[in-house]
Amino acid sequence: MSEIVVTLPDGSELSVAEGSTVEDVAYEIGPGLGRDTVAGVVDGDLVDKATPLEDGADLVIVTEDSDEYRRVLRHSAAHVFAQALQRRHPEAKLAIGPPTDDGFYYDVTNVDLDSEDIAEIEAEAEEIIAEDLEIEREERPRAAVLEAYEDNPYKRDILETEAAGEDPVSVYRQGEFEDLCAGPHVESTGEIGAFTLLNISSAYWRGDEDNDTLTRVYGTAFAEEEEMEAYLERRREAEERDHRKLGQELDIFSIDETTGPGLPLYHPNGKRILDELAAFARDLNLDAGYEPVETPHLFRTELWKKSGHYENYVDDMFLLDVNDEEYGLKPMNCPGHATIFDQQSWSYRDLPVRYFEDGKVYRKEQRGELSGLSRVWAFTIDDGHEFVRPDQIEAEVTLVMDNIVRVFETFGLDAQVALATRPEKSVGSDEIWERAESQLRSVLESRDIEYDVEEGDGAFYGPKIDFAFEDALGRDWDGPTVQLDFNMPERFDLTYTGEDNEDHRPVMIHRALYGSYERFLMVLIEHFDGKFPLWLAPEQVRILPVSDDNLGYAHRLANELDDFRVEIEDRSWTVGRKIQQAHSDRVPYMLIIGDDEESTGTVSVRDRNERERKDVDREAFAAHLRAERDEKRIEPDFLD
Amino acid sequence: MSEIVVTLPDGSELSVAEGSTVEDVAYEIGPGLGRDTVAGVVDGDLVDKATPLEDGADLVIVTEDSDEYRRVLRHSAAHVFAQALQRRHPEAKLAIGPPTDDGFYYDVTNVDLDSEDIAEIEAEAEEIIAEDLEIEREERPRAAVLEAYEDNPYKRDILETEAAGEDPVSVYRQGEFEDLCAGPHVESTGEIGAFTLLNISSAYWRGDEDNDTLTRVYGTAFAEEEEMEAYLERRREAEERDHRKLGQELDIFSIDETTGPGLPLYHPNGKRILDELAAFARDLNLDAGYEPVETPHLFRTELWKKSGHYENYVDDMFLLDVNDEEYGLKPMNCPGHATIFDQQSWSYRDLPVRYFEDGKVYRKEQRGELSGLSRVWAFTIDDGHEFVRPDQIEAEVTLVMDNIVRVFETFGLDAQVALATRPEKSVGSDEIWERAESQLRSVLESRDIEYDVEEGDGAFYGPKIDFAFEDALGRDWDGPTVQLDFNMPERFDLTYTGEDNEDHRPVMIHRALYGSYERFLMVLIEHFDGKFPLWLAPEQVRILPVSDDNLGYAHRLANELDDFRVEIEDRSWTVGRKIQQAHSDRVPYMLIIGDDEESTGTVSVRDRNERERKDVDREAFAAHLRAERDEKRIEPDFLD
Repeated sequence: MSEIVVTLPDGSELSVAEGSTVEDVAYEIGPGLGRDTVAGVVDGDLVDKATPLEDGADLVIVTEDSDEYRRVLRHSAAHVFAQALQRRHPEAKLAIGPPTDDGFYYDVTNVDLDSEDIAEIEAEAEEIIAEDLEIEREERPRAAVLEAYEDNPYKRDILETEAAGEDPVSVYRQGEFEDLCAGPHVESTGEIGAFTLLNISSAYWRGDEDNDTLTRVYGTAFAEEEEMEAYLERRREAEERDHRKLGQELDIFSIDETTGPGLPLYHPNGKRILDELAAFARDLNLDAGYEPVETPHLFRTELWKKSGHYENYVDDMFLLDVNDEEYGLKPMNCPGHATIFDQQSWSYRDLPVRYFEDGKVYRKEQRGELSGLSRVWAFTIDDGHEFVRPDQIEAEVTLVMDNIVRVFETFGLDAQVALATRPEKSVGSDEIWERAESQLRSVLESRDIEYDVEEGDGAFYGPKIDFAFEDALGRDWDGPTVQLDFNMPERFDLTYTGEDNEDHRPVMIHRALYGSYERFLMVLIEHFDGKFPLWLAPEQVRILPVSDDNLGYAHRLANELDDFRVEIEDRSWTVGRKIQQAHSDRVPYMLIIGDDEESTGTVSVRDRNERERKDVDREAFAAHLRAERDEKRIEPDFLD
Repeated sequence: MSEIVVTLPDGSELSVAEGSTVEDVAYEIGPGLGRDTVAGVVDGDLVDKATPLEDGADLVIVTEDSDEYRRVLRHSAAHVFAQALQRRHPEAKLAIGPPTDDGFYYDVTNVDLDSEDIAEIEAEAEEIIAEDLEIEREERPRAAVLEAYEDNPYKRDILETEAAGEDPVSVYRQGEFEDLCAGPHVESTGEIGAFTLLNISSAYWRGDEDNDTLTRVYGTAFAEEEEMEAYLERRREAEERDHRKLGQELDIFSIDETTGPGLPLYHPNGKRILDELAAFARDLNLDAGYEPVETPHLFRTELWKKSGHYENYVDDMFLLDVNDEEYGLKPMNCPGHATIFDQQSWSYRDLPVRYFEDGKVYRKEQRGELSGLSRVWAFTIDDGHEFVRPDQIEAEVTLVMDNIVRVFETFGLDAQVALATRPEKSVGSDEIWERAESQLRSVLESRDIEYDVEEGDGAFYGPKIDFAFEDALGRDWDGPTVQLDFNMPERFDLTYTGEDNEDHRPVMIHRALYGSYERFLMVLIEHFDGKFPLWLAPEQVRILPVSDDNLGYAHRLANELDDFRVEIEDRSWTVGRKIQQAHSDRVPYMLIIGDDEESTGTVSVRDRNERERKDVDREAFAAHLRAERDEKRIEPDFLD
């Protein structure tokens, strides 16, 4: 019997008998791994564990405790849902049902589902899982499948796109149910240890507003019941912290039908937070030698043609006609900054030149994709651009990186860092790319920052380092970035005079410490559950007079703290209700003052973590408050 | 002989003989006035002094020392120019030649004028003035005039618009020259005591880019030569201070062909000034109880339909189509602020609610009208909106007014103040208008502010007080404003709950402390001739080391002043050249340091007014600098 060779993730090669499957190789490595194997990734594609391997394949073995396995399990759970749906509602038409990071969904039509239906379908799904039906891949002649789906335009669409030209076509079958599907799947429905449906929304076929509207049913599945319980608990917590919910409760922002979708209006509470964030970034920028600039939101599209963005971005731009010329709202700030740089002549001694601007940009997302502050049409980037000599890249990136690290530390957020390297389509010489990538690596290493390498994932104009914020619930969000750019200086013909008196080309660095204020504000609202650090809190102190008799003292106190955002709760409520309201508004500190406090000139201090102390000296409290604010401490710690 | 009655500006009535002219009435009042009379204003229209009056006319007598007379004289000067032009260039076609505030222009075509031609035409005009030709009004049959202008589409256009249906048509003649004209004019060309042509530009017929391009020749004229000399001196000074010239020299802003007209880009020096202005306004606003908000630049036009702006503003708006819905860039911030107010329910105890936002707005001026920062497409308003109970108007307007007065004082600008009252077309009851107007008057009077009343010049939605900045050259520029608004709260159905538990309608106040940052920055650049007060100066201190040996000391000094914007002049220039450059850059203070200063640890201080002192103690200087900045003093006064 002849042998084939497969390559494992660590680079080692293994010779196995021709015709060996993923599972066979796993047993070859060890019987424990063989038993735990649930699927494989062959040359980048997820496949059933029963898939035979070919000579030279790259193989990753997928076990139960892996993201890949959960995707397979959830894909099978989507089929279980579809089977249950068809048992209960045979008229329903299936469109598409993929796994997602957290579960699965299935888009269906020709059926109206209320909460009672959903409960029944869930019960039916449990039944199907109990039946432990074997899930089998079958190859069918294309013509037969096309005919079977005669009345289903969605499946036919899939046959014309994803499965174009395939013959035979693969179908997965479990009991009486089958579905057009490339797989892979688990071996039987019984493998699904826990299954639930979550909610229903609507969606366009292929996400395109011009297509049919479908009903999207979300669900999730796990191998173990406890895993699902833990997930559902995290999900409930995330829902409680959802920035759309808290944004309204805490009066931070609104998005209004009349003013337009994806266009947030910031109320005073939201704007106060944004202003503090902007002031912090501004301080970091000024200290690092950045200079402020300001550019408009409207530009002739000539500018984007010059920068090269027009070709790639035009579909995402808001365009308008002015006097028969095409104008657009800016989708990024860099070409404006390059234009300012270009207004002056520069010597090698002047570089780096560093500009920053809190620039509101406009990008036309699909309307159906818009959501709270996480997907918007208008967002503000804390945008900085540096024009540096090639020999300054490393020092400059170090400076940026140190400020980014400062941001993560200040907000108590963990970072996920990725270095994205040269993609296939790119501009610039090999030499300059190699040098730039090694400079970026060197900065990461000199600062002991753990990072992933995303090979070929850089921008076409240069390599970059992307940071993601990891929040209190362990979720990652796009955050700061440092990008080198060899292209725009060429496009704008930017130059500086070198020591040799010749013209030289600067390198441009794009960077943001937050990314977008909108996304960052969303992360902060959810990360802190609305309990912002004192320096960020829209209202920092609330004074609660026990009765109207104490209002005079309340105002004297407020005056003493006039460098803070202080409110006096003067509604004719009981102290208990006033405290409850202040907690629900997440105010860091409450000062409760009755006749006792007034007669001794003290205050009772309560913090939002429900700790309280009486007879507090006012000056000592004020001094603490200033230190807590100025040091940007995350939790109120006067009562520690 | 029967009598007619005319009313004079003080309200008195005068009976005069039927057929009396303006001049006759003036002689009736007194022979001195009769001799000085050069024209009249009858029922609001400027007319020749020889115009006969009708019964019941309102009459203002115009004497030589009045703006009205200067307009008449300059109108005649425009005719003198046209006559001189036609003597030299008979082929030239005349379009239109009105007087302006500072002189006159005449739009002409079919002729190419270089500077030599202009000098010859000027000499010819002097000749015409010396000829002292009588200027006579003649009435001609319409048909004859139409025929005479057969080859002149512009005059024919005037006959079809301004002079539509008139028959006979009035023509003014002086010597061989005549021009279609409604008048009035001086009696003879000899009355023009001083005449000059100023410059040539181009203009569209009727200001419309779709029409012919014409040559516009600007000139001016005065009764006395000395007046003109004084005017031309002021004009030269204004040109030297022109913000477009200084804006480039001091690297404050640019407007670029590729990025678009009317869309300024602020360079670091400009943005630093804007940031200081914004911080000052912010402090005033926060102290006065305003809360910050932020709204986008793009809105559905539904919003403007709701606010009522759409009908009036649509032609000035930048519109675009998004998913088949109409959107627009905001031309003002108020509807966004009304929307935010409307998201919450309010009690009478919560009012006034005050929002502020530095909101960039977009208004589509004619492209030909755009100029520097004074006429732009994009400008930022320091916009505030208050929602008040009717009984709070007076207190609230007083608060706003006090902050406006503070702005005028801080920048050393004089104010022109006007109260604009109810126009014919307006919304709101008589009672509320009367009360509101009397509240505005009462604030002005209680604060001893001199003001003009502009009857009927209020907005349709409420009365207002407009402030103009008067700059160092005595010119007025639109500035701050306080406007009451009874309309928008209706349109948005804004309410608060009164003490009576019923819904009530708040009054909205629109106000700005600067007006637009663009216009204000222009005023400041020209008012200060680029010599900004220390707190505004983009660069506050420049350190001039005598030699490179003193660079270390220079950096130590710069560190000691790290709360200031300090630069070190490290180019290898002589001290003399360094000083000259710092003067031309208008830096308030220079610190000159050589070996003497370094050895004694002192500095030599030079200010931009060319005063200098040696052996200055560094700490004393730094302390002075802090006080000068924090007190916002206008002139550097350390060396006083």
